[in-house]
Amino acid sequence: MSFRIEHDTMGEVQVPADKYWGAQTERSRNNFKIGPEASMPKEIIEAFAFLKKAAAYTNTDLGVLPAVKRDLIAQVCDEILEGKLDSEFPLVIWQTGSGTQSNMNVNEVVANRAHVLQGNKLGEGKTFIHPNDDVNKSQSSNDTYPTAMHIAAYKILIDITIPGIEKLRDTLKAKSEAFKSVVKIGRTHLMDATPLTLGQEFSGYVSQLDHGLKALRNTFDHLSELALGGTAVGTGINTPKGYDVKVAEYIAKFTNLPFVTAENKFEALAAHDAIVESHGALKQIAVSLMKIANDIRMLASGPRSGIGEIHIPDNEPGSSIMPGKVNPTQNEAVTMVAAQVMGNDVTVSIGGSNGHYELNVFKPVMAAAFLQSARLIGDACVSFNDHCAVGIEPNYDGIKKHLENSLMLVTALNPHIGYENAAKIAKTALKENKSLREAAVGLGLLTSEQFDQWVRPEDMIGSLK
Amino acid sequence: MSFRIEHDTMGEVQVPADKYWGAQTERSRNNFKIGPEASMPKEIIEAFAFLKKAAAYTNTDLGVLPAVKRDLIAQVCDEILEGKLDSEFPLVIWQTGSGTQSNMNVNEVVANRAHVLQGNKLGEGKTFIHPNDDVNKSQSSNDTYPTAMHIAAYKILIDITIPGIEKLRDTLKAKSEAFKSVVKIGRTHLMDATPLTLGQEFSGYVSQLDHGLKALRNTFDHLSELALGGTAVGTGINTPKGYDVKVAEYIAKFTNLPFVTAENKFEALAAHDAIVESHGALKQIAVSLMKIANDIRMLASGPRSGIGEIHIPDNEPGSSIMPGKVNPTQNEAVTMVAAQVMGNDVTVSIGGSNGHYELNVFKPVMAAAFLQSARLIGDACVSFNDHCAVGIEPNYDGIKKHLENSLMLVTALNPHIGYENAAKIAKTALKENKSLREAAVGLGLLTSEQFDQWVRPEDMIGSLK
Amino acid sequence: MSFRIEHDTMGEVQVPADKYWGAQTERSRNNFKIGPEASMPKEIIEAFAFLKKAAAYTNTDLGVLPAVKRDLIAQVCDEILEGKLDSEFPLVIWQTGSGTQSNMNVNEVVANRAHVLQGNKLGEGKTFIHPNDDVNKSQSSNDTYPTAMHIAAYKILIDITIPGIEKLRDTLKAKSEAFKSVVKIGRTHLMDATPLTLGQEFSGYVSQLDHGLKALRNTFDHLSELALGGTAVGTGINTPKGYDVKVAEYIAKFTNLPFVTAENKFEALAAHDAIVESHGALKQIAVSLMKIANDIRMLASGPRSGIGEIHIPDNEPGSSIMPGKVNPTQNEAVTMVAAQVMGNDVTVSIGGSNGHYELNVFKPVMAAAFLQSARLIGDACVSFNDHCAVGIEPNYDGIKKHLENSLMLVTALNPHIGYENAAKIAKTALKENKSLREAAVGLGLLTSEQFDQWVRPEDMIGSLK
Amino acid sequence: MSFRIEHDTMGEVQVPADKYWGAQTERSRNNFKIGPEASMPKEIIEAFAFLKKAAAYTNTDLGVLPAVKRDLIAQVCDEILEGKLDSEFPLVIWQTGSGTQSNMNVNEVVANRAHVLQGNKLGEGKTFIHPNDDVNKSQSSNDTYPTAMHIAAYKILIDITIPGIEKLRDTLKAKSEAFKSVVKIGRTHLMDATPLTLGQEFSGYVSQLDHGLKALRNTFDHLSELALGGTAVGTGINTPKGYDVKVAEYIAKFTNLPFVTAENKFEALAAHDAIVESHGALKQIAVSLMKIANDIRMLASGPRSGIGEIHIPDNEPGSSIMPGKVNPTQNEAVTMVAAQVMGNDVTVSIGGSNGHYELNVFKPVMAAAFLQSARLIGDACVSFNDHCAVGIEPNYDGIKKHLENSLMLVTALNPHIGYENAAKIAKTALKENKSLREAAVGLGLLTSEQFDQWVRPEDMIGSLK
Repeated sequence: MSFRIEHDTMGEVQVPADKYWGAQTERSRNNFKIGPEASMPKEIIEAFAFLKKAAAYTNTDLGVLPAVKRDLIAQVCDEILEGKLDSEFPLVIWQTGSGTQSNMNVNEVVANRAHVLQGNKLGEGKTFIHPNDDVNKSQSSNDTYPTAMHIAAYKILIDITIPGIEKLRDTLKAKSEAFKSVVKIGRTHLMDATPLTLGQEFSGYVSQLDHGLKALRNTFDHLSELALGGTAVGTGINTPKGYDVKVAEYIAKFTNLPFVTAENKFEALAAHDAIVESHGALKQIAVSLMKIANDIRMLASGPRSGIGEIHIPDNEPGSSIMPGKVNPTQNEAVTMVAAQVMGNDVTVSIGGSNGHYELNVFKPVMAAAFLQSARLIGDACVSFNDHCAVGIEPNYDGIKKHLENSLMLVTALNPHIGYENAAKIAKTALKENKSLREAAVGLGLLTSEQFDQWVRPEDMIGSLK
Repeated sequence: MSFRIEHDTMGEVQVPADKYWGAQTERSRNNFKIGPEASMPKEIIEAFAFLKKAAAYTNTDLGVLPAVKRDLIAQVCDEILEGKLDSEFPLVIWQTGSGTQSNMNVNEVVANRAHVLQGNKLGEGKTFIHPNDDVNKSQSSNDTYPTAMHIAAYKILIDITIPGIEKLRDTLKAKSEAFKSVVKIGRTHLMDATPLTLGQEFSGYVSQLDHGLKALRNTFDHLSELALGGTAVGTGINTPKGYDVKVAEYIAKFTNLPFVTAENKFEALAAHDAIVESHGALKQIAVSLMKIANDIRMLASGPRSGIGEIHIPDNEPGSSIMPGKVNPTQNEAVTMVAAQVMGNDVTVSIGGSNGHYELNVFKPVMAAAFLQSARLIGDACVSFNDHCAVGIEPNYDGIKKHLENSLMLVTALNPHIGYENAAKIAKTALKENKSLREAAVGLGLLTSEQFDQWVRPEDMIGSLK
Repeated sequence: MSFRIEHDTMGEVQVPADKYWGAQTERSRNNFKIGPEASMPKEIIEAFAFLKKAAAYTNTDLGVLPAVKRDLIAQVCDEILEGKLDSEFPLVIWQTGSGTQSNMNVNEVVANRAHVLQGNKLGEGKTFIHPNDDVNKSQSSNDTYPTAMHIAAYKILIDITIPGIEKLRDTLKAKSEAFKSVVKIGRTHLMDATPLTLGQEFSGYVSQLDHGLKALRNTFDHLSELALGGTAVGTGINTPKGYDVKVAEYIAKFTNLPFVTAENKFEALAAHDAIVESHGALKQIAVSLMKIANDIRMLASGPRSGIGEIHIPDNEPGSSIMPGKVNPTQNEAVTMVAAQVMGNDVTVSIGGSNGHYELNVFKPVMAAAFLQSARLIGDACVSFNDHCAVGIEPNYDGIKKHLENSLMLVTALNPHIGYENAAKIAKTALKENKSLREAAVGLGLLTSEQFDQWVRPEDMIGSLK
Repeated sequence: MSFRIEHDTMGEVQVPADKYWGAQTERSRNNFKIGPEASMPKEIIEAFAFLKKAAAYTNTDLGVLPAVKRDLIAQVCDEILEGKLDSEFPLVIWQTGSGTQSNMNVNEVVANRAHVLQGNKLGEGKTFIHPNDDVNKSQSSNDTYPTAMHIAAYKILIDITIPGIEKLRDTLKAKSEAFKSVVKIGRTHLMDATPLTLGQEFSGYVSQLDHGLKALRNTFDHLSELALGGTAVGTGINTPKGYDVKVAEYIAKFTNLPFVTAENKFEALAAHDAIVESHGALKQIAVSLMKIANDIRMLASGPRSGIGEIHIPDNEPGSSIMPGKVNPTQNEAVTMVAAQVMGNDVTVSIGGSNGHYELNVFKPVMAAAFLQSARLIGDACVSFNDHCAVGIEPNYDGIKKHLENSLMLVTALNPHIGYENAAKIAKTALKENKSLREAAVGLGLLTSEQFDQWVRPEDMIGSLK
């Protein structure tokens, strides 16, 4: 490999000759060989591109950056957003906790790429655009990285997470309506209980996801607050007047998301409670998905020795040794994702709680965990939707068998003969392996006609939605 | 100890002669000797009292319970709320996961206490009020216990948690204003950075708590939904028409909190995402408190070999061996509470994710963890406020010494001489143990007059709030 | 209430006249009103009693404490161990993070109680025993509290946790042997799989608990190391030569547990990795118990619409609305305990990770979480054992029905006709609702005789233990 | 892209023409588009290569596989181990929870690659080696995937994790010895305390890592147990006699690690407590690293307004806005890794607790989290060692300044004048801004000569290691 020499305030560094990054990126690359290369999430890099472009526009508007520099910076930022420079961001999550080195990675790539766009050769001559004094003008890592975190987080929620959840929610809602007349046994404590409809059962899942979506959206206000303009410690040193409000407006415009400048920049640098808050909502959704995916695989269990009240699609051979076996694999993926998100929540919380003085230095790990959770939930909902939920059908035979055998239909007798007499009937039926009717009449507690009149599963499902 | 005989659908049980509880309570007491006795939170018992009274009123309104029974039930519920029957609830958290046994504990105590209020002797004769058919009328454990969870959770947040947080928030806000002109060194990565005011530093804490309070209040909508009316599996079997809406109205009236009936009762029994959601906000606040309490103890550290920029009150002798030592003990209590709440969040999430079919059976552990977190945060904020925050004062000597020595004032030179030249000055000053001014002038990068004009800490703190 | 005046190095304090505690205890009581009173675990107080007695003996042996003082101190310690002074320890977990105040609580109670044992009146005259100079001689909170943590932790594991786990383990082992010939269907992915015996299924649970017990015992070495002798920062200042080794010997003697002095006292004060390590093993056991209790309740589910392959004891009426319902309540208590322990593990880890310099100040919360987990696991295992595991019996009807219907018996044909042909048989049987034999012969892949010879569930269960 | 047709028991599938994988891999690829492609850890694929080779050797030894097939299988496995087939494993973590699809991915690649090695063209003709009947002979996903988990986990601990920790441990040990005479102030509660040596302070870190390494090694026994031979449900159906023991021997031989067959195969499939156990030790080490890295960055804080008692290497420019700033970036990477590992522990525990019946289906997420933690800890220790720990030096000026000012040297007077008198001296010195000597003599409690004789920091550091 051939190298060129780059320098920073610490001296010279050898950099791969064909890469746009500079000295500080290379130092980080060499000093942080932790885990796989280039693990810093690409969503963060994209967010930086939005941010650098917005900063350049704002700086020019406020008279501290020539328009020609603005346009060059913006041009490179657009290339980043188009994915043309993906190989220029080799750094890892496990670097400095402020993300300074990834901020500098972007600054250096912009400066050097602009140099080449101007017709120069990489590494030859002084760049027209300076990574710190131009690309990073009116900025600090300390306000750019948290800004990038909020941009990336908000964007992935809108682009991936919420559409995925909504897709699944809509399918489950449609199933809930389709199954609204399918009366089946209920189960509490895993034990037989009074009946409900399969549609009612599914309506609970829909309600969980609706509440989860609402909880997630409740976090948008906090997430919409941007640190940019706080610079080094939150005071906004070295920013022109009006910068913070205007740069947030540009970011809002470029991302089409309702970002505003944070009212308090000191919090915005020193804490990442917005990320903690929003990931808390992702964790809640993971908790819901665990319940939903568990229920569906239990209801589908069998084919002959399980609960067997629904069919789910057969997608893959399920066993390398048991021929003909088919498993609820989508449910398994979803519940594994839920376990990951629940663990990530602890990572995010620990990171969030450990800021000191004017800066929290767990930024990259919090960003990476958040983005992983947001993507996994979105993707898993789509996968589960497309390859499982859409294909769910009642197994009428199984449903009927369980409903007819159920002892808990006896609950319908409470208002007529009291709880204790009803209990006697159920216990007798179980003990003597009889039907409820046989036991009830045999005990002389009611007539067969009364039984027919009072014990009607279809009347036990309420008028509730 | 003397006993009387009580019975339930399983047969006879010996119960302590002087206790109002009945057979099912006693069974649970005997079958679940796990941890300390009577660990079921008293807030849950109180919530049941509100609920049973509301159910009685609703049942009477809807024509299924005589007014005389309603009034007897309500009378005992009021006694519970007054704390007169505290010793009648001996059960533990670690019982059935539906909380059925605590529901029956309340049912039994109400029935037997009413029996005595009517002038009868405990254990003699049949009670006029039946625990299941009257006290529990139109109810199931499956909808009462989650209703009690929401009542208890909402109430403690309003009564204890939020007032505690607000008290601390208001003190920190006042300190932030009082300290608004105290210019001090900033620290990022624990390292010296550009200056800010002590008031700005504290404003970040206020902003964190404001966002936390908002996040907590965002969860109230979900928490205001009551399961009651869902009965056994969410269908509302054995409830009169209109019961669910009306009983929520009574509960809202009795508690003075805006409860409504849950739109979807199936979720309300089978999942406790509202508890997960609301505890998520408590966890976020714990994360904030960890940051705030850590910062304050680090700023107060010393007295001679620490950071020493603020004074906090000396409350207790700090060491059994080191005479004269005083420690930031309130901060330690707060951070321990934060660790507990962060752990509780995992407990609540695991419990919440493990509901099956029509019922989640981790109700008591979720309730207990939630109530512990809510109380600890409220109490700890008050304690920290009263015994620490109100007494915080700047240590002007320490602040001045650090500010004057700081090398990061050099940042003010960036716009004038560029980042790289400014870096040269800082490095020279550090290496040669000089002041910035000496280094700057020595390097010939600016004059002493320019230094005075450009490097003014009081101009580096921005116009930000 | 009447008061007497006590004093400490900060001045005078009013203390309830009839209580043995002194000024520092009272300060803590007043300054930390967080959560319920007296929450500091009693196991910690007991551990302090062992420790103070051992310190007194060692101090006398090494010539720094008169024997008469030793004997008085020891006498009060014995009273504490007998539970005679239980009401003298009112402090909470949420105090100073070093536990200094609970150390002083013990010191003060010992001094004042000794004063009374000598025939004096509480609060009158100077005590012969000084809380710091005598009871706390050669000690600091910084080494006593972590010593008390290890004593209490080790002791509860030996007294409560391990006997509880072993009791359950032995019952499951006996069940595994009793059920060794009960051939049943296996289930993987919740779906029907090849057969095994019920005894084999239970042997997995036994193996989990055996491994858990081994993991727990692996932590004893670290837990046996005592901080005592490190005093203020780990250097052992103000201790006589040989003190640390000897005091550990006395503690070992008094507790009958193999304690030794920690090789490195700096770790022993500044970190509590031994508690983190040992609680990690408790968490592993919680994970195992969650699996075991889940399996058993799923196997017992029904009575008519579940899996129904085992019977578990009917202990309590299971529903306040559904007559005759019986639920797996012990399993629910166990799984709730598991959720609590898994959350406690996060609390313990966060506390353990946040020590600074020479001291970790999350000691009380770590101790309390540990002791709760240890007790809950021990108690829950006994409860689950006595009220559930001992009564588990196979439900032969359910087992037989599932086994005979199973399609996965086809796996036995792989070695004879290959995986793909075997899959064809299973799929045909499922699709055409036939038995495997019908499908196999119908497809012409083998004869009925071959089927009988090759597909024998009792030959499919291996020769494994 | 061109395709070829592959088939499995479910029918035909289009597969990229140039890839060795087959129908089942392609189904999984299409059905699980969750997160980035090919996220299944490469360590798992390598472990499968060891396993498949070992199975082939065992099958041949036991007479169920011709030697020619064994040799072909082994040849492809060796290619996998050499990294020649890295692009043939496109599946993700978020697939079926048994990892069946990755097992089949390996089976298919081996079969097709062997076909080509025999001189055939990929996709033309029937393969001599059958993925199920040959490569997977005497195996099931259910025993291969957990076997691969143990192989991969044990191997990474030996190859990466432990060497990394030991490297750091050895450096810290050397520093501890080098600094053994550097007397400095101690700090408890972040407040000034009695002195110790810098070497003693570092010895605590060494002790933590030593205990962590021991804890990790304690988990090796459980981790050495292999599930292989259990096949579908743990009974070992379709395995020849003696297979399980022998295949473990081959794996031990090929990996050079002391693997044995699991005594109980039912646990080995249905639970992954060994992974939970071993990850618990990784979490403990993360807790230790958090403490160590925090301490070191606090001790190094400054350069002028922090604690400033040690120097750490300056590796990168620390700020994009503050010139000359250098930060403890390696410490930040380590603490972020610690936060990740602590979160992963929750993921692993939740996965581990949710096995059902004969199979745990959270295998891939548990494996991935474990391998990430193990690698990050190993890599981070090396990075922290090489770029920070090796360069740590005392800052003698800072150390001396703090030591001389300290009030807690007064502790040395306790044995001479009692705790309360000593406290008076310290409080007077603090209040009147005097030295201890001035205050002591001024209060008339001792002479200047006695002060010199009794208060000697170098005598206060004990004889402890």
